[in-house]
Amino acid sequence: MAEIKKVGVALLGVGVVGGGTYEILTTKREMIKKNDNIDIEVKCVLERNIERCKQLGIDEKIVSQNIDDIVNNKDIQIVAEFFGGVEPAKSFLIKCLKAGKSIVTANKEMFSKSWPELEAAAKEGGAGLYFEASCVGGVPVIRALTDSMQGNAITGLKGIVNGTTNYILSKMSDEGVDYDTCLKEAQKLGYAEANPTADVDGFDAMYKNSILSSLAYRKRVPIDKIYREGISGVSVDDINYGKELGYAIKLLAISKCLDGKIEARVHPVFIPASHPLASVKGSFNALYMHGDNVDDVMFYGRGAGALPTGSAIVSDIVFAAGKLEKPRRFYWEDDVTVNDDDFASDFVSKYYVRVAGNKAAAEKAFSGAKIEILKSVEKDGQVIFLTGEAHESTMKNALAAVDSVKGLIRVED
Amino acid sequence: MAEIKKVGVALLGVGVVGGGTYEILTTKREMIKKNDNIDIEVKCVLERNIERCKQLGIDEKIVSQNIDDIVNNKDIQIVAEFFGGVEPAKSFLIKCLKAGKSIVTANKEMFSKSWPELEAAAKEGGAGLYFEASCVGGVPVIRALTDSMQGNAITGLKGIVNGTTNYILSKMSDEGVDYDTCLKEAQKLGYAEANPTADVDGFDAMYKNSILSSLAYRKRVPIDKIYREGISGVSVDDINYGKELGYAIKLLAISKCLDGKIEARVHPVFIPASHPLASVKGSFNALYMHGDNVDDVMFYGRGAGALPTGSAIVSDIVFAAGKLEKPRRFYWEDDVTVNDDDFASDFVSKYYVRVAGNKAAAEKAFSGAKIEILKSVEKDGQVIFLTGEAHESTMKNALAAVDSVKGLIRVED
Repeated sequence: MAEIKKVGVALLGVGVVGGGTYEILTTKREMIKKNDNIDIEVKCVLERNIERCKQLGIDEKIVSQNIDDIVNNKDIQIVAEFFGGVEPAKSFLIKCLKAGKSIVTANKEMFSKSWPELEAAAKEGGAGLYFEASCVGGVPVIRALTDSMQGNAITGLKGIVNGTTNYILSKMSDEGVDYDTCLKEAQKLGYAEANPTADVDGFDAMYKNSILSSLAYRKRVPIDKIYREGISGVSVDDINYGKELGYAIKLLAISKCLDGKIEARVHPVFIPASHPLASVKGSFNALYMHGDNVDDVMFYGRGAGALPTGSAIVSDIVFAAGKLEKPRRFYWEDDVTVNDDDFASDFVSKYYVRVAGNKAAAEKAFSGAKIEILKSVEKDGQVIFLTGEAHESTMKNALAAVDSVKGLIRVED
Repeated sequence: MAEIKKVGVALLGVGVVGGGTYEILTTKREMIKKNDNIDIEVKCVLERNIERCKQLGIDEKIVSQNIDDIVNNKDIQIVAEFFGGVEPAKSFLIKCLKAGKSIVTANKEMFSKSWPELEAAAKEGGAGLYFEASCVGGVPVIRALTDSMQGNAITGLKGIVNGTTNYILSKMSDEGVDYDTCLKEAQKLGYAEANPTADVDGFDAMYKNSILSSLAYRKRVPIDKIYREGISGVSVDDINYGKELGYAIKLLAISKCLDGKIEARVHPVFIPASHPLASVKGSFNALYMHGDNVDDVMFYGRGAGALPTGSAIVSDIVFAAGKLEKPRRFYWEDDVTVNDDDFASDFVSKYYVRVAGNKAAAEKAFSGAKIEILKSVEKDGQVIFLTGEAHESTMKNALAAVDSVKGLIRVED
């Protein structure tokens, strides 16, 4: 029999995902002990809502409202955080890291904004950083990037990383229902927040893009280097015209590293209906990547939810428990400089452009900007252009002179 | 600066994948050193074809034809094998394991047939077993099963794990070309061997199913517990009728663990055209799994090829190098008993059945066997039945009395 390693864990918050994590840690404790030789015990839960703790069957004796109960507890080696938002999550985790406790988190906003500071605190305390659950929920995309593609230079990634927007766009596309109605439906079903900005305006996808791209290119890609545009401007008309042309609409987190320059962006995209990402429907997520040796790979699954996200948190806890002697930190523990030269100042894309009326004016604008027209189709008295690759700035300048543009969607083949 | 760990590697064979691996280890040596703090040096290549070694730029001084040069070399910690087939791969690897060298392999036939013996040798020598490249090429599905789903009981998996058959079935489906023609085309393009049996008769998929299912359910699933049927009996007619009913044809490796009983099989299957596996075309592979907490996940990518498979081999070498002090072995190092009670004696499926002529005889047979008819459609003077779930044996017995059965394909929703 292998020796069983005992590990003490604290949970900061037991809301939806924290509760799901507690449930998995409880129901699977014996299985994990047997399979992985690690006995994970929840030693402290930081939570104000005592009723919620009771519901979950958490012994009141381990519930606290004071982070120092965790920081000072020598029996706790790993702290999993479920608050969401930057503060107090960040301050609490930095305290824990400095005290030598490894952290596990799904908090993409806090993590993408504070990674260098967390790294420094982890180094100071000799602790590690684990955040598998921050992107694509239960699907091990972070682990794939850090531990399975070591023989590759990653050249690009495209991700459906936000379930709310994918649900809304899937519904608009499948049922022809407009954006506002779909958003309300998503809110009613609990897929969208009362204030939906973080999701529909692409902030959530931007945070995840920052984390994924930083790992992919081994250079920190801060959120202010990421172009961001949400889905509220997408019309059912454009979705339908795109469908007729063989495209599906998705909000993608995209990044590329070409000739040493990184470009990163979040916006609605038309992708071919035959692309593997096109079949990712509803609230599912997926990450599609290209490595120079492995070629294209895709990882698919639930991007959110108590148990899928909890599954990633528990996997990270087991992973962290196996690495207490050699905790995981990253290359920028020594250098957090963000060098402007590493980033492309503009990005290049193909475009779908819908123009009402004056076809000649649009053609003239494209021709003047040296943008190739790959295809043009007349529909219901309008013209749809599919263009060749152009810089975003070139396209925007060209279209400034065309007053009848009704829709513009970037196209990724 | 972190300390660089020096690791010596031997390659057994430098054919297609061995050559690809050598290429990656050479071109990415500095990158891996920088990113992962591991300096991997190829210390010996076991290869008779000296010309091939020269082509790859391998120094003749490290080429050998004697496995003992590797077994006795104290500077080699990891041995990667590329022979394929059971022998001499198995004997050589067992020698290496007993000498304390961890092994990395893509050899699914040898591995699935010899796992317990490899495990015993690894235990004896204090070495580890790494075989990410054995299933779904460059995509880290083994790592997902072993290191990312610890908080889950896995209840089932479905995999497109053989590129040759997926290429043939995709072509039959997309172009309406018959099996023999597609096989010849695949042979011409190098996607199928001159003797295609291992692929088209499902042996390759069976080996992979054995490895994946053994990991998923943490019980050894030997190949003789896996039902196997190839694709040579699949007709373009059935593919086309299936399409009209909303199905896509795939050769799947399927296994399930229900109420503690494992069932495992390889055969052609109709899946809904909207299923994520349906968009896995040509020579791509994918593994779709269900965990009780993470829900459905899918991993997609190239299942073969020098560089994609080499990518997984290199990832395993880096992984193994990080675990030299605590090499990876599995639960059955202590118990290799295969208990018949752990396996279902029969499997349950829905069915597509095509009957020429006498509809009443088929209906009578289904009714007599208590098999529900979910739908029946008349096409070109024939009848297609979609049935509810039935045991395979029940279905086969029922159809024995019907002499006009022209096609039978199992259906997975």
